[in-house]
Amino acid sequence: MFEVGIIGVTGMVGQQYVKLLAEHPWFKPKVFIGGKSAGKLYEEAVEWVGEYEPPKELMRKQVEPAEPERQKADLFFSCLPSEVARELEAKYAAIHRVISDASAYRMEPDVPLIIPEVNPDHLELLREQRKRRGWKGFIVTGPNCTAAGLVMALKPLHDEFKLKKVIVATLQAVSGAGYPGVSSLLIIDNVIPYIKKEEEKVVVESLKMLGTLENGKVKPANIMIAAMCHRVPVLDGHLESVYIETERPIKPEDAKEVLRSFKGKPQELKLPTAPENPIVVREEDDRPQPRKDRNAGNGMSTVVGRIRKGIDDYSLRFTLISHNTIRGAAGNAILTAELMYKLGYWEV
Amino acid sequence: MFEVGIIGVTGMVGQQYVKLLAEHPWFKPKVFIGGKSAGKLYEEAVEWVGEYEPPKELMRKQVEPAEPERQKADLFFSCLPSEVARELEAKYAAIHRVISDASAYRMEPDVPLIIPEVNPDHLELLREQRKRRGWKGFIVTGPNCTAAGLVMALKPLHDEFKLKKVIVATLQAVSGAGYPGVSSLLIIDNVIPYIKKEEEKVVVESLKMLGTLENGKVKPANIMIAAMCHRVPVLDGHLESVYIETERPIKPEDAKEVLRSFKGKPQELKLPTAPENPIVVREEDDRPQPRKDRNAGNGMSTVVGRIRKGIDDYSLRFTLISHNTIRGAAGNAILTAELMYKLGYWEV
Amino acid sequence: MFEVGIIGVTGMVGQQYVKLLAEHPWFKPKVFIGGKSAGKLYEEAVEWVGEYEPPKELMRKQVEPAEPERQKADLFFSCLPSEVARELEAKYAAIHRVISDASAYRMEPDVPLIIPEVNPDHLELLREQRKRRGWKGFIVTGPNCTAAGLVMALKPLHDEFKLKKVIVATLQAVSGAGYPGVSSLLIIDNVIPYIKKEEEKVVVESLKMLGTLENGKVKPANIMIAAMCHRVPVLDGHLESVYIETERPIKPEDAKEVLRSFKGKPQELKLPTAPENPIVVREEDDRPQPRKDRNAGNGMSTVVGRIRKGIDDYSLRFTLISHNTIRGAAGNAILTAELMYKLGYWEV
Amino acid sequence: MFEVGIIGVTGMVGQQYVKLLAEHPWFKPKVFIGGKSAGKLYEEAVEWVGEYEPPKELMRKQVEPAEPERQKADLFFSCLPSEVARELEAKYAAIHRVISDASAYRMEPDVPLIIPEVNPDHLELLREQRKRRGWKGFIVTGPNCTAAGLVMALKPLHDEFKLKKVIVATLQAVSGAGYPGVSSLLIIDNVIPYIKKEEEKVVVESLKMLGTLENGKVKPANIMIAAMCHRVPVLDGHLESVYIETERPIKPEDAKEVLRSFKGKPQELKLPTAPENPIVVREEDDRPQPRKDRNAGNGMSTVVGRIRKGIDDYSLRFTLISHNTIRGAAGNAILTAELMYKLGYWEV
Repeated sequence: MFEVGIIGVTGMVGQQYVKLLAEHPWFKPKVFIGGKSAGKLYEEAVEWVGEYEPPKELMRKQVEPAEPERQKADLFFSCLPSEVARELEAKYAAIHRVISDASAYRMEPDVPLIIPEVNPDHLELLREQRKRRGWKGFIVTGPNCTAAGLVMALKPLHDEFKLKKVIVATLQAVSGAGYPGVSSLLIIDNVIPYIKKEEEKVVVESLKMLGTLENGKVKPANIMIAAMCHRVPVLDGHLESVYIETERPIKPEDAKEVLRSFKGKPQELKLPTAPENPIVVREEDDRPQPRKDRNAGNGMSTVVGRIRKGIDDYSLRFTLISHNTIRGAAGNAILTAELMYKLGYWEV
Repeated sequence: MFEVGIIGVTGMVGQQYVKLLAEHPWFKPKVFIGGKSAGKLYEEAVEWVGEYEPPKELMRKQVEPAEPERQKADLFFSCLPSEVARELEAKYAAIHRVISDASAYRMEPDVPLIIPEVNPDHLELLREQRKRRGWKGFIVTGPNCTAAGLVMALKPLHDEFKLKKVIVATLQAVSGAGYPGVSSLLIIDNVIPYIKKEEEKVVVESLKMLGTLENGKVKPANIMIAAMCHRVPVLDGHLESVYIETERPIKPEDAKEVLRSFKGKPQELKLPTAPENPIVVREEDDRPQPRKDRNAGNGMSTVVGRIRKGIDDYSLRFTLISHNTIRGAAGNAILTAELMYKLGYWEV
Repeated sequence: MFEVGIIGVTGMVGQQYVKLLAEHPWFKPKVFIGGKSAGKLYEEAVEWVGEYEPPKELMRKQVEPAEPERQKADLFFSCLPSEVARELEAKYAAIHRVISDASAYRMEPDVPLIIPEVNPDHLELLREQRKRRGWKGFIVTGPNCTAAGLVMALKPLHDEFKLKKVIVATLQAVSGAGYPGVSSLLIIDNVIPYIKKEEEKVVVESLKMLGTLENGKVKPANIMIAAMCHRVPVLDGHLESVYIETERPIKPEDAKEVLRSFKGKPQELKLPTAPENPIVVREEDDRPQPRKDRNAGNGMSTVVGRIRKGIDDYSLRFTLISHNTIRGAAGNAILTAELMYKLGYWEV
Repeated sequence: MFEVGIIGVTGMVGQQYVKLLAEHPWFKPKVFIGGKSAGKLYEEAVEWVGEYEPPKELMRKQVEPAEPERQKADLFFSCLPSEVARELEAKYAAIHRVISDASAYRMEPDVPLIIPEVNPDHLELLREQRKRRGWKGFIVTGPNCTAAGLVMALKPLHDEFKLKKVIVATLQAVSGAGYPGVSSLLIIDNVIPYIKKEEEKVVVESLKMLGTLENGKVKPANIMIAAMCHRVPVLDGHLESVYIETERPIKPEDAKEVLRSFKGKPQELKLPTAPENPIVVREEDDRPQPRKDRNAGNGMSTVVGRIRKGIDDYSLRFTLISHNTIRGAAGNAILTAELMYKLGYWEV
């Protein structure tokens, strides 16, 4: 068992870490780190949003202020707001191993942006990171919650059919905005067709993750991507409807087969939180749906359905669901930690 | 004042007709025609869904069975379910003027499919229709509720920049499915990424309306269109996010100007229910939204916002809202009736 | 035309004032007063929540800081948060006429707590207020949004049947919590059975308003009231289901008649915003409903339905809807201002 | 292992049976009985509403028509609509053991209406039933979903403080209306203050279950009950806010203790689906909430909170949540079956 810290433990994603780590076979949540809530017991500090409450011993943990020098843990998970992440994560990384869901370091050239099934080879960037930063620890990041599901589905299609163009429209859950996040006054009987900086992040992060490692650097994939992001009155689970154009002809049946058979390192290594199928393909006309499919593979699988022709033989349409606070944040980071341990990346 | 009949008066769109005609300066609702509800008073037969109730004298009208020979009115509006529309509308058209929201005749080569601001010239198809069908009356149709808003926005863009490709993702209101329509068990905290036959209708109807009249026939527009339709927990108002590619370079500022200045025959003729602006352009980051924008122009305007670059100089993204039971059904049909009267099409 | 100021103009109730006063025949909104937003244009400062936007000239008004000495208006409406209302309203009242929706002064013995149809005679407390406080202006208050609808319905029943006990369960809209107010994460697919201090306010304010003026003081009504308050996923309109016990026998038909025929001073004086019927009685099994009934009488009527037997001949059950930001706040205050003007209370 | 049949297997409650029995240690779902869906595979016949799908072998079971003579099982669970339940359940009971959630037989004097923790002694009515009806099997019923949670909470309070009066307001989930049930057009941004026959059922069923067995008959409890029922936009879980008056003085702290320590036969006998605590008491101001508390004890516990003074020392207010399709239907019936087996009631 390794001891881990959670930086930003009271937020939506912080809560998801607490829930997922409460029963993790390798990682034991030891240090809870908060901002304004430091000094309180976790149960006093947190507005627990989800249905299932964590065990009492976690609820009664004391929230500590951010003090990297004084705190000890084998690994720190960070889900800080971007504003504070930049400075604080660097302080932690100077001493500790850090895996972060924050956006601050995602696009740095020497920072791996990882979905374990998609681009585990990008972890090699850590050699460059150590050299350049002189940190004793490291920072590895996970993608934006929308990019996570999208790239999971695009990866096997790109490998097989070579993507040229991707037009994606998202219908995103309110939990993606954190707590209190979206006011009920804005979202009941409504849709908000705008999420700040989201469309930009989806594009650049997707291209980095689908990119190739060349000479110790990531060369972004050469795909044209346009995103149109919407907030909808759904609690959890980002739905994304995707239109793609490919270099090679793409038949819906072939695309299904490619998606269905996709496996990655986590499945190969049988990592504790790896879903059996990173992608679940559904055949029903009306699936995937957020409420019915967001928890597939304990929230770690991307569910793809409505796979159908685009406008010609070189295009395709499909819809996917990915759980935004699990695969899109805490769950992906935990799986990354498992993968890094198994592959020997804890010591670079 | 002309007297009009409403065929299918108890359904969602039927209710919208009653509401809109209650105060219409030219048309007076005289004949209420229903199926199973024939024989009852309207107030007994209808499950009135909207907020504002119609005047008592309309609520206490008797619903009559469909008997075209016995019924007299200057014009009949039909909003029948497709299954029964095919046969019944023909019977009415044999004797009466019929403007229909049903899908049965929309794609017939001799039936005009009309948005008054977009393709009033297609009314010329009526000459062919009369010749071929031998009806004393006629059938003119309005489009599917999703195509209505889409084509309104595409028309001026197509005229100016020549469209090559359109990828549209829709977030459609539950009222589009009629009453009782979508079960609350399916849509609370959820999205359904499927509406039967909707994607196909959007494509073929849009191409017909954007097509050109040549030798008494409509030649469909030569545009590649792909639609991805979703039902969301919103009461009224279809939101559509659109990605387009054009033959000529398209700058967001130019597109805005083209959309903003778009006017049609109804505005020129100052028809009673013509909105001042068929297209309203909004500049805020987060508009249009269904709840805030669906009633623009009394539900007759299409509100367009988030006009921004696509992936290059020949592509564009934008979001629109159109009220699905007003401009997408009853309101569009009433405006078509006004237009036809003014242009002399009541007598072909 | 009188010129009025709105203190707290950017909040939910402030927005309701702007909307209602935009077209008021007597009152012209002149001074917009805000806290943090002072110095900005109203359109920059406000997150406009409702559907219909106010006229441009109001949207472009400058928001001013609270400076009672420098500001001039015939009347100030205040909808300040309670924390700041206590001190700031006193400063305004020292110089100006103030009608307030804030809770700070409602229960002061020399401050009238007014629903114009219910207890206009309580305005006499102003004599005592002037004597005791030495203010050149005054403070008159309106009730908590839940008490407003409840007392409107109870008043005629109390007069006729003499109430002994009232058990009321409320289903309150999210707009009652202001903006941003209730997080969507808490209320989608959920109910929150708690609103801070609400149950206590409903009791004490109702008893004061139903009380009698004796020797220049209000003697609270002698009724046992218990409230159970819930927040539900509804935008506007508080629904309240009420069980009452009375001293005199009460038949549902008699109660209906008493409610239906209730009129007050505002109706008698034909005040501009007085609804024709302060209470609208509905006979349908399933009414009133928030969405269908909250706007009755432009949001100024209380709609009562499901009037039925309680447990015996001395008890009754019924359900009511009252618009929480109109009759429960801004609308009630505006009507109070109209009434006070007509009755000569602007000069005490 | 016993083999069981489910009559009405495609409805909302039928689905809940399939889900709960899929993993039951004693009962194996063998016969699936439907109406119009007979002849189809279950996966074709059912519109599966919940999140988790049952195992494939159950999804691929064939749905059979109702043919009591030909069907064999140790026990039949019925969740038929009331209209057909009366006749069909009698046919099954003539041959088979039947436990029913339908309302048809609940109020028959010789039919036990059972919550296992509340009135297991009422099973003695079966002696009378056998005598009178001459059935080889039997019918035992479970209560209406609203009465289930209410009576669970009232039972220990009645035993300790003797109830005189109960005023209950309910906020009920849409799943209580079955599928498709409540139209989304009626319930988004709305509340419906009416559920057909519900208020009557709550009263008479509660009085029967709280009644005493005297001379082989149930004497209803002598309590005055009034119910006010509302449908709210919540998927699962009925919330009920309750005001009670008692003969003996009742302090909130004492009531809590009585509720918290309540146990029944199922707990004593450690039945497989008995929750550890039939009543869970929560101390937070804002609990219980449907989304957070409906699944307590796997949906078998009633969660009670906001226990506070009523209007005097002889009254109390509190709020409860009970899962309407588990404890309010399938779960309660399964627990009843377990109890009856253990107590020897399978052979009367």
